[in-house]
Amino acid sequence: MRGTMLYGPRDVRFEERPDPTIIDPTDAIIRISAACVCGSDLWPYRGLEPVTQPKPMGHEYCGIVEEVGSEVKNIKPGQFVVGSFASSDNTCPNCQFGYQSSCIHREFLSGAQAPVFRVPLADGTLVATPSFPSHDVIPSLLTTSDVLGTGWFAADAANVKPGATVVVVGDGAVGLLGVLSARQMGAERIIVMSRHESRQKLAREFGATDVVAERGDEGVARIMDMTNGIGADSALECVGTQEVMMQAIRSTRKGGYVSFVGVPHGVNPGKVFDLELPMAQVAEGYRAMDERRAIKVLLWP
Amino acid sequence: MRGTMLYGPRDVRFEERPDPTIIDPTDAIIRISAACVCGSDLWPYRGLEPVTQPKPMGHEYCGIVEEVGSEVKNIKPGQFVVGSFASSDNTCPNCQFGYQSSCIHREFLSGAQAPVFRVPLADGTLVATPSFPSHDVIPSLLTTSDVLGTGWFAADAANVKPGATVVVVGDGAVGLLGVLSARQMGAERIIVMSRHESRQKLAREFGATDVVAERGDEGVARIMDMTNGIGADSALECVGTQEVMMQAIRSTRKGGYVSFVGVPHGVNPGKVFDLELPMAQVAEGYRAMDERRAIKVLLWP
Repeated sequence: MRGTMLYGPRDVRFEERPDPTIIDPTDAIIRISAACVCGSDLWPYRGLEPVTQPKPMGHEYCGIVEEVGSEVKNIKPGQFVVGSFASSDNTCPNCQFGYQSSCIHREFLSGAQAPVFRVPLADGTLVATPSFPSHDVIPSLLTTSDVLGTGWFAADAANVKPGATVVVVGDGAVGLLGVLSARQMGAERIIVMSRHESRQKLAREFGATDVVAERGDEGVARIMDMTNGIGADSALECVGTQEVMMQAIRSTRKGGYVSFVGVPHGVNPGKVFDLELPMAQVAEGYRAMDERRAIKVLLWP
Repeated sequence: MRGTMLYGPRDVRFEERPDPTIIDPTDAIIRISAACVCGSDLWPYRGLEPVTQPKPMGHEYCGIVEEVGSEVKNIKPGQFVVGSFASSDNTCPNCQFGYQSSCIHREFLSGAQAPVFRVPLADGTLVATPSFPSHDVIPSLLTTSDVLGTGWFAADAANVKPGATVVVVGDGAVGLLGVLSARQMGAERIIVMSRHESRQKLAREFGATDVVAERGDEGVARIMDMTNGIGADSALECVGTQEVMMQAIRSTRKGGYVSFVGVPHGVNPGKVFDLELPMAQVAEGYRAMDERRAIKVLLWP
């Protein structure tokens, strides 16, 4: 098969690789229906994270199970599955506590930007859908692999409650799905900090009631103005810089909650994918996200 | 009257001062039944916080209302009251949200180590007891002025739940009352990190099930050992140093809660006062706490 490899800064290649096979008896092999490019994939792509050797890329995926190892009990060949970016056995004390992303047997997966992918700890890492999804639902299901769960966690960790006033700082895929999650949790007022028109539009569609384009001191002043000088109940920091973190903290009321970073219902989180490409054009996908021409790039095998 | 003044490092004087009077119509004047010395009073006492001019000391107090201003509605002369170290109107948006300690009209009080004390925003800051307390209950009531509320908040912020395993780092008055609070919240296992025998004993009386005397790496290793390598559900950092903060974080499970910093029932939080002195000997009270001869010093007027 051909799969996505990163050789170094801005050097993405879609090239011949060995087909994945079962290694451990808890593995599954899945045929990818859709994969995508993560904001965090841009870190090594931009040279902000060293690439010491060619690295298979991609950790967001869904697809059809082709084969399972001898110890896999619940996942069956032929099922449609979505998987997490971090493997988990779903039985260790951390998993039982609800923190599968900190499973004591966790591995961070990579290599899903390819037509076939090996998933370790298949029973804990993969979730099968009750029926086979139609093509137009696949992008929304794909978001549960990472960005929707991350946005949901951000809203949950920021203690978003029914009736709350929430500030979401950041309009990337996670920020936008943080808006959607806050809406699902019953927030009454959701202020998104964004200066991109297309992202503002999607934020409103996902449930944002207000948009603030200002940043830094000006942005904080606007939030304070909108909340009678009190600040928001909850703030979601969905960017990852110190500046944005301070903006989130300063926009929050005394005794409020700030999170720094899932499950859809009646909405379409897949709309964060504003560029879809055949996997062989994966290099263009990285370029489009790097240059902010795309919020998030979906890859069809 | 005579009251406690701090002139500079280790220079505490109990000296003649003007009697407090009503200044604002929301004030109350109370005759102190008991006051005490706070761990935080030791900061300027030790020269760790500058003293630019003689400062009236003391912010933990209870006593009898002598006089109220014209706008005070609920607090009446003759009532026995306990007050907070921070004044609050109990009506502003932050107070209504449950964060009276961040009232938008907050003042940090000082001057309660004296026989008479002026309390601003009396209706919001003071709580009257339903009946006049007996002498032996006064120390426990006095803890609600600061240290019990602070210990309770530490346990609440660390998300202590019934059945939880909790680590309390620090055996000062706040740490010990953090133990008591965790017990009241239903924690099953409460591990206190303490190396003072008398404090270990009181911690056990307040509900600690285990004592760890080791610190730093060794302390963390002991906690991990006691929790099957998983860590505690909640950790309360009740000291205030970076080293202790890291010890608390490293003792906590993945997905657990760490707090860094109220209300008694059927217990005797007043036991944190292990030295009682007439107020005129206040200087000896500071020395005893500074030299760790006392957990917390109660002052009788």
